[in-house]
Amino acid sequence: MTPARPVFFVSDHTGITAEIIGKSLLSQFPGEAFACTSLPFVDSEEKARQAITRIREAGQISGLRPVVFSTLTDAGIRAALDASGALVMDVYGQFAGMLSVELGRQPVALRGRLHGMDDTGAYHARIEALNFTLAADDGLSVDKYARADLILVGVSRCGKTPTSLYMAMQYGLHVANYPLTPENFERPGLPAALAPHRTKLRGLTLNAERLAQIRSERKPGSRYASLENCREEIGAAEALMRREGVPVIDTTRRSVEEIAALLKLSIQPAALTG
Amino acid sequence: MTPARPVFFVSDHTGITAEIIGKSLLSQFPGEAFACTSLPFVDSEEKARQAITRIREAGQISGLRPVVFSTLTDAGIRAALDASGALVMDVYGQFAGMLSVELGRQPVALRGRLHGMDDTGAYHARIEALNFTLAADDGLSVDKYARADLILVGVSRCGKTPTSLYMAMQYGLHVANYPLTPENFERPGLPAALAPHRTKLRGLTLNAERLAQIRSERKPGSRYASLENCREEIGAAEALMRREGVPVIDTTRRSVEEIAALLKLSIQPAALTG
Repeated sequence: MTPARPVFFVSDHTGITAEIIGKSLLSQFPGEAFACTSLPFVDSEEKARQAITRIREAGQISGLRPVVFSTLTDAGIRAALDASGALVMDVYGQFAGMLSVELGRQPVALRGRLHGMDDTGAYHARIEALNFTLAADDGLSVDKYARADLILVGVSRCGKTPTSLYMAMQYGLHVANYPLTPENFERPGLPAALAPHRTKLRGLTLNAERLAQIRSERKPGSRYASLENCREEIGAAEALMRREGVPVIDTTRRSVEEIAALLKLSIQPAALTG
Repeated sequence: MTPARPVFFVSDHTGITAEIIGKSLLSQFPGEAFACTSLPFVDSEEKARQAITRIREAGQISGLRPVVFSTLTDAGIRAALDASGALVMDVYGQFAGMLSVELGRQPVALRGRLHGMDDTGAYHARIEALNFTLAADDGLSVDKYARADLILVGVSRCGKTPTSLYMAMQYGLHVANYPLTPENFERPGLPAALAPHRTKLRGLTLNAERLAQIRSERKPGSRYASLENCREEIGAAEALMRREGVPVIDTTRRSVEEIAALLKLSIQPAALTG
């Protein structure tokens, strides 16, 4: 068996950026075996030495040159890492240099600007959005809908809650969600709580087989989870949304990130269409 | 007034990776004004043409060369973007090429591998972790603690819920959280629900002034939010965690991402120390 190639995400802060870039790139080489390790908070020469020792050892044990994705900002620590013998993808070295030339000024190598609290206002806005979204989950806090950026609607277990939470955390948006239940389908028009906020509504739907599968994991054998009931609920919910002009996204084959990106696009003033 | 330099995050998928890299780099040039626009789902020649038109127009209107962070995977669309006159930070072009040489094989330019559902198992595990974390928020579902990777403890509003949700979504970890309340401080030892899971416990704390400020936004003028009460609760909670050997993180000046990265590090078998 071929050993897995050692991969390290090295950062002087959380390592989130290095991990995202690295995993994104590694995913373009399917079939290769990678043994990934995160080394966050490498923010001193001593920790850099420990990190380099680990990287070198992994190279010796596997017999494969380690790959390092680095978002280190300190020039001295970066130079030490470059001398480790690993293939170093130095994100800031590559791109900060290009930007520096274009802008005609030097970058300020303060670590952790993005995932820290340096921009305190933006950070607290994001946490506030998350608190709003938690409070306005599943039809709660309809009296706060004036403060919502978006209100997601759809049948139970169509993906509203994960999508709402993701949008709050990633984009700092206030995203409420409201379940469409059989009692909503008996009356014509939108539920009373939603009617004043028509432009903020976005519908989620999915295919009945997938919904029945998701619901069965939660309540196996129930009428709620039966394919017949899922078909009925989805049919009624889609008809309601179509009648009321609510834009709908099919979540069957989309990740939360994909649904969130599509929803965000739908509230940008000049979205690309087509 | 100097116009803001136009910046675009261009992707054939969600654009999350391009945004994270771009914002991280831009944050190293504080004081510069940037006008950022996300252009996700640029996955056809027609959409690429529309994107390039927008980028060029923004350059003409501002009189400044646009900066583009791109995670495009299609070679033809990337070439067209390069010809737009913008400064293009081509993430995959730079690093996928380096990796390709090292691994001795060509990258598979399938878009959206990272933030999509290609790795269905890993994606569902992450959603499952989020559902667990929602169900085990704020002391709920203590009967499910055997399935938890971590159980966060601390006084009300110390950051347990946002941190738990972030760790579930970002890392796919099952993170429960349990509030330490005045009634827990009257009895010696850990609360009964926590005692069997000692090694999974991590404490969050923060300074009393900050806690009083956070609680006051929620319940202004209450005893719950008073500085005196916050001091008492924090003192008792910290004493309990110290007595019981629960590792504690101070969240006062840390973002959710920083707290999450530290907690993740605390469960890695070979964490860097120091």
